[in-house]
Amino acid sequence: MTDTSGTPVTTGAEQIAVEETLTQNVLHSFENCTDPRLQHLMQALVRHLHAFIREVRLTEDEWNAAIAFLTEAGHITDEKRQEFIMLSDVLGASMQTINVNNQAYKNATEATVFGPFFAEDAPEIPNGGDIAGGAPGQPCWLEGTVTDTEGEPVPGARIEVWEADEDGFYDVQYGDNRVAGRAHLFSDDQGHYSFWGLAPTPYAIPHDGPVGKLLEATGRSPMRASHLHFMVTAPGKRALVTHIFVAGDELLKYDTVFGVKDSLIKYFEQQAPRTPTPDGRDLDGKTWARSRFDIVLAPTEADSGH
Amino acid sequence: MTDTSGTPVTTGAEQIAVEETLTQNVLHSFENCTDPRLQHLMQALVRHLHAFIREVRLTEDEWNAAIAFLTEAGHITDEKRQEFIMLSDVLGASMQTINVNNQAYKNATEATVFGPFFAEDAPEIPNGGDIAGGAPGQPCWLEGTVTDTEGEPVPGARIEVWEADEDGFYDVQYGDNRVAGRAHLFSDDQGHYSFWGLAPTPYAIPHDGPVGKLLEATGRSPMRASHLHFMVTAPGKRALVTHIFVAGDELLKYDTVFGVKDSLIKYFEQQAPRTPTPDGRDLDGKTWARSRFDIVLAPTEADSGH
Repeated sequence: MTDTSGTPVTTGAEQIAVEETLTQNVLHSFENCTDPRLQHLMQALVRHLHAFIREVRLTEDEWNAAIAFLTEAGHITDEKRQEFIMLSDVLGASMQTINVNNQAYKNATEATVFGPFFAEDAPEIPNGGDIAGGAPGQPCWLEGTVTDTEGEPVPGARIEVWEADEDGFYDVQYGDNRVAGRAHLFSDDQGHYSFWGLAPTPYAIPHDGPVGKLLEATGRSPMRASHLHFMVTAPGKRALVTHIFVAGDELLKYDTVFGVKDSLIKYFEQQAPRTPTPDGRDLDGKTWARSRFDIVLAPTEADSGH
Repeated sequence: MTDTSGTPVTTGAEQIAVEETLTQNVLHSFENCTDPRLQHLMQALVRHLHAFIREVRLTEDEWNAAIAFLTEAGHITDEKRQEFIMLSDVLGASMQTINVNNQAYKNATEATVFGPFFAEDAPEIPNGGDIAGGAPGQPCWLEGTVTDTEGEPVPGARIEVWEADEDGFYDVQYGDNRVAGRAHLFSDDQGHYSFWGLAPTPYAIPHDGPVGKLLEATGRSPMRASHLHFMVTAPGKRALVTHIFVAGDELLKYDTVFGVKDSLIKYFEQQAPRTPTPDGRDLDGKTWARSRFDIVLAPTEADSGH
């Protein structure tokens, strides 16, 4: 705590008592809550929120700025823009929640952030199909197997994939209702899956709103490391929300949402023009890339981390 | 931390390291911030936010509920409805910020929450004027003096007053652009002020939005104790934002925004019909009330609490 000239000042016993009494009164206000989990959450939230305010000696101007920030975030948020998820992402709160709920379980594939760009009802494609839907970018063949932690194939796993195009935008950011760069498919009888996507490219998260201003004011970049999103679900298995990242991407260390995990960094092999494609597709002389992502699903009972 | 069956489980050293490393990475992301205060605020916010998530083992469903809550709060907020201020209020965050910034200074009048219902450009009235502007309620004569902490009168202090009508609504809640139950006036050469208002009545904060749902889900009342708002400013003096409350109000202990301070509870004397009024106003046989609120302003240099 400092006064306006920056000189450290102390807080007297009387003042400490005033502040502590208020916190206790707020905690007591939840004592009639009949949902024990909700009560626990709200009381913990109040303890940490008050500890923050007291520790930093939050000024009234700063409180006003916080209210204005949340208001602006609320007003820019709509069906296709989710500023609160981005706020949670850039504060590492999303990733910490993922960590808490996806504790390491044997060799199960690690999880990372969900992000704000998933869309329900992405089209289904067959194995070997193309998710691009006209989105611009370098074609990229992706394949792998879905297994359980004992190495047994998981057939029929639902695999949702979504990614930005080479201009750094997801379909939902264009505002013209296009559906591109997203699809879902199912692993086959041997747990195998494959599809054509786009080689992932780095992009900035939407930074024309309050989260972007916060990043700029704090000297942070809005860039995300190149990645492709996966969400994989199967009966009896813990749902997996993750990405794969591109080995060698210089942004791996600076991903603005803290989503990178070493185990999720994959080699994307660049293929010379006219290199034969796995499914015989004719790419008309264009370069293409390929990568492999073998997915290991934890059992549902791994949810508690044990 | 418990698993889904409620059995306590422990968090292993490897998991603790994963979570701690993430928090440290997020803290480091602010190291290029050139504004030391902003850097301090953001790093403290991240520490407390991550501590909350880790302590309660926040589930992904709960994270989703939090995002949905903030989104709904953002969408119901407009020029006249401020759900984020109400959220801060019911969590005691507003009052704690007031406490931090308005430490006791000699005999200076205590501060309390600002609330979401202040409006700029309230009409000016002379001393002895009426703020009601047609708002329904029992007439109430209010008077007092504005002095400094040495007892010297403060002439020309700007006094903003605002209150709900007897139906429990502020003018801005009606949506018809009426201006009622609010005004500003100035203390006279002796620091004295007086005006006609309405005897304060209890009311519920707007509870048809997410904050109301939260209060209901946690077994809390949306009611505020009866009160009348003041904001008093004068050159060289610490701005005072406060209320006066009504002695005997049974809601004093349960004010949902934690705004009550003992020193702000005042007697409102009920006057029988035809009791002569201080300024000779003819109330046509109606009952009326009166109260006194002497205001003591701290000097500007009290801002740091010393």
